[in-house]
Amino acid sequence: MARRTKVYEGKAKILYEGPEPGTLVQYFKDDATAFNAEKRDVIDGKGVLNNMLSEFVMSGLNQIGVPTHFIKRINMREQLIRSVEIIPLEVVVRNIAAGSMSKRLGIEEGTRLPRPIIEFYYKDDKLGDPLVSEDQILAFNWASHQDLDDMVSLAVRVNDFLSGIMLAVGITLVDFKIEIGRQYEGDMQRLVVADEISPDSCRLWDIKTGQKLDKDVFRRDLGSLTDAYSEVARRLGVMPRNATPMTKPKLMN
Amino acid sequence: MARRTKVYEGKAKILYEGPEPGTLVQYFKDDATAFNAEKRDVIDGKGVLNNMLSEFVMSGLNQIGVPTHFIKRINMREQLIRSVEIIPLEVVVRNIAAGSMSKRLGIEEGTRLPRPIIEFYYKDDKLGDPLVSEDQILAFNWASHQDLDDMVSLAVRVNDFLSGIMLAVGITLVDFKIEIGRQYEGDMQRLVVADEISPDSCRLWDIKTGQKLDKDVFRRDLGSLTDAYSEVARRLGVMPRNATPMTKPKLMN
Repeated sequence: MARRTKVYEGKAKILYEGPEPGTLVQYFKDDATAFNAEKRDVIDGKGVLNNMLSEFVMSGLNQIGVPTHFIKRINMREQLIRSVEIIPLEVVVRNIAAGSMSKRLGIEEGTRLPRPIIEFYYKDDKLGDPLVSEDQILAFNWASHQDLDDMVSLAVRVNDFLSGIMLAVGITLVDFKIEIGRQYEGDMQRLVVADEISPDSCRLWDIKTGQKLDKDVFRRDLGSLTDAYSEVARRLGVMPRNATPMTKPKLMN
Repeated sequence: MARRTKVYEGKAKILYEGPEPGTLVQYFKDDATAFNAEKRDVIDGKGVLNNMLSEFVMSGLNQIGVPTHFIKRINMREQLIRSVEIIPLEVVVRNIAAGSMSKRLGIEEGTRLPRPIIEFYYKDDKLGDPLVSEDQILAFNWASHQDLDDMVSLAVRVNDFLSGIMLAVGITLVDFKIEIGRQYEGDMQRLVVADEISPDSCRLWDIKTGQKLDKDVFRRDLGSLTDAYSEVARRLGVMPRNATPMTKPKLMN
């Protein structure tokens, strides 16, 4: 197999040129980072779990008519995606106060919000991804008014769908982050959900015990990240029974 | 306990006056009917299962900010709801062709639709709940333009959430019906999801086997309806472990 052209390498994923124009291969690494990459580790099998969990959610979104960049999973660590132009905003939906919202606004972690709240963060590692207002977004031309409307609409639909998925397996969807990209067809553009949707980008709490099943396990040193992500995958019936994330990836690399 | 005032009795439920103004008690019967009540039976435990499954979905919808009439479950057969003025339209969302759509449009049952399709049926047993167009709805003043927009928006959100719930437990949400009511507060009205959301009002197919887990089991004589509904409840962790629907309801009546 010919050596592939790397298009972009981020903290948790690598993008390679895809087999056809307009496609990319998204490779999930085992690297975990937090606090703007000040905390780092390699978590054996994380990439495999996120690849499969993100496939589960993204293919489900495609089926209910919420457009995403996801085309298909290729193997344990890679998926084929549509090449899109990422809007430089992280879109966060919060159902329950936690993390930075609790800190910034003094709302106790675990408080259910009066309704889901949508926030935009400007994607810039050097600046620490600062919260931005809609007027800032419009003034700096990061997105248009129509883009913002479309982003809110996508974010609400992802929240509805993902809340349902998690509720059904005894998990509270506390909050999550999505990235959104512009997909062009001729003169037309449409916005699609991009990047990944996984326990790296969500807060997931067990409904009964409150146990954290997401990246906070890593951020706050609460135990094994692989165990937490595996538990989510197990409940959703996502992992192939004979492929434990701890061993199988070794064979695939 | 004083004898309660019956407000309305339908095919599968009874409404009683509630403890406070603006509330009702919704009682789930075991009666099953199909084909406009031409086919009838009593299915031991069906009411209990639908009460609990509808609680699961409606309380989840309330939490993600989709307003419903549901306040709380009172006991195995009853729930406390807000009194609303039911709009005389059944709102159907279809993800996959089945039932009347397959028959009327000649689309093979099981065909995934290009996107979720929303239909309105005029609620009238004598007429057999005929399909109606949006222009008919507006002309006969069953709902306003704003109502229709709000109804579509509610229907899409319920579809997103319920698709997620079912996907997470290995079930395809083929289609479902909701009813929508007007809730008044002073001069203001808002539309809320009313009636019930249960295997009586959804088509649910096992993703792997295609097995039907909904009212088609009764309509088409495919086996035990209680077994099918219990399977849905079991996967969602909804049934109390010691209350099997076959026996417990007897003690409650």
